[in-house]
Amino acid sequence: MEARLIPVFPQEMNMAQNIYDNPEFFAGYSQLPRQVQGLDGAPEWPAIRALLPDVTARRVADLGCGFGWSARWFREQGAASVLGFDLSQNMIARARTDTDDAGIEYHIADLETLELPKAAFDLVYSALTFHYVRDFGRLIRMIHAALAPGGELVFTIEHPIFMAAAHPQWLVDEDGRKTWPVNGYSIEGERRTDWFAKDVLKYHRTLATTVNTLIDMGFTLRRIEEFAPTPEQIAQMPALAEELERPMMMLVSAHRN
Amino acid sequence: MEARLIPVFPQEMNMAQNIYDNPEFFAGYSQLPRQVQGLDGAPEWPAIRALLPDVTARRVADLGCGFGWSARWFREQGAASVLGFDLSQNMIARARTDTDDAGIEYHIADLETLELPKAAFDLVYSALTFHYVRDFGRLIRMIHAALAPGGELVFTIEHPIFMAAAHPQWLVDEDGRKTWPVNGYSIEGERRTDWFAKDVLKYHRTLATTVNTLIDMGFTLRRIEEFAPTPEQIAQMPALAEELERPMMMLVSAHRN
Repeated sequence: MEARLIPVFPQEMNMAQNIYDNPEFFAGYSQLPRQVQGLDGAPEWPAIRALLPDVTARRVADLGCGFGWSARWFREQGAASVLGFDLSQNMIARARTDTDDAGIEYHIADLETLELPKAAFDLVYSALTFHYVRDFGRLIRMIHAALAPGGELVFTIEHPIFMAAAHPQWLVDEDGRKTWPVNGYSIEGERRTDWFAKDVLKYHRTLATTVNTLIDMGFTLRRIEEFAPTPEQIAQMPALAEELERPMMMLVSAHRN
Repeated sequence: MEARLIPVFPQEMNMAQNIYDNPEFFAGYSQLPRQVQGLDGAPEWPAIRALLPDVTARRVADLGCGFGWSARWFREQGAASVLGFDLSQNMIARARTDTDDAGIEYHIADLETLELPKAAFDLVYSALTFHYVRDFGRLIRMIHAALAPGGELVFTIEHPIFMAAAHPQWLVDEDGRKTWPVNGYSIEGERRTDWFAKDVLKYHRTLATTVNTLIDMGFTLRRIEEFAPTPEQIAQMPALAEELERPMMMLVSAHRN
């Protein structure tokens, strides 16, 4: 029985789609630069760092912690404790193998039903996970309650421009320019795409819904970023230039009132 | 010499493009339902109303007031005074003709250079005008100073999804579905389109820039809406259904700290 840094409430296992434990998906996903190289393999990481507060002596929850790269980074930055949660047994097993730090705990958890203890965290962080969650309002209400007053929520999601269309793939406009299709933007709900596996299930929400849910649940919006690569990043990796055409990710920081 | 409700500072006439005084443009524009029928001719008007504070006994500035429909409406709602500003001599002339109210004043003004008196307004309102303004940071700083503490800014703009592309016109996807093109989203600046006249000049900004500018200048974001028609509106006017595919307008309300 592992030690518990903070009691975590029991939760139903009314599981969301767990594509990360599909062997075919996991094999492909594990080869992404961000999984092999860690945080520096993600081009948006410098933009995320700019949104993160000082975590020295702070209690962090990492929702969708994957292999634990960010959990370990928070501890290197001086965090008092990090609790990482992920739906994937594969992910959590690998995170535990790769981590040797009594200040980090990993738990298998479904964000549709997870209940964290009240006012127990100073930062809730989540990277590219919330677009898998159906009930965003419940999740944000729970996070608000789990944060101590003055705490921060920093998260990244796939951008709704990227997610909206029925066929989200590049087109070419009349000048031969890469062009991204948008349709069904205002029609929220399920989107199914093929990404390392067939029918990966995500939930499209408008940008307005994301922002207004945060405000309605008691957060003050601090900053939105629609990730675009810097000229230096494009010089190093020319393939990133297409990210200027449409944002693939949205980064959000919000303050718990 | 007309009476002045509030002193308005002199301003340079370093004019922005004044397409509204182009006779061809003005003739076409004047026939839009929202110009002929007034506020109820704009499908987004109910969504705007939901964002507006109670204006009883409040001082209102209306930036891009056009024919004065909203200025007169604010007075009907009990506003103490309304100052309307527009770059277009045609618009201001028509607004003056159509208005018989000592509580409303209209002025020709360029939002690139307009300076309003400090802490003189309780609400600054603007409909579909700010996307013509090059220097959004200057404008928002000026509006923040012109609002009394606790005042509100409510505005609508063309949505950046609508504005970004080099050729902003409907495409059809592989299923025959109306699809909107997005490219150059992260490349801010001039966009030229043909709309009642050739080369109408607008300024594209990302949604993040719009939101972050407000926050940086001292506003708290209250709400964003990406206008989509209601089922009732689509039943009454089936052509509106395409507005579900991509947002044409963004509505913003923000609180002056």
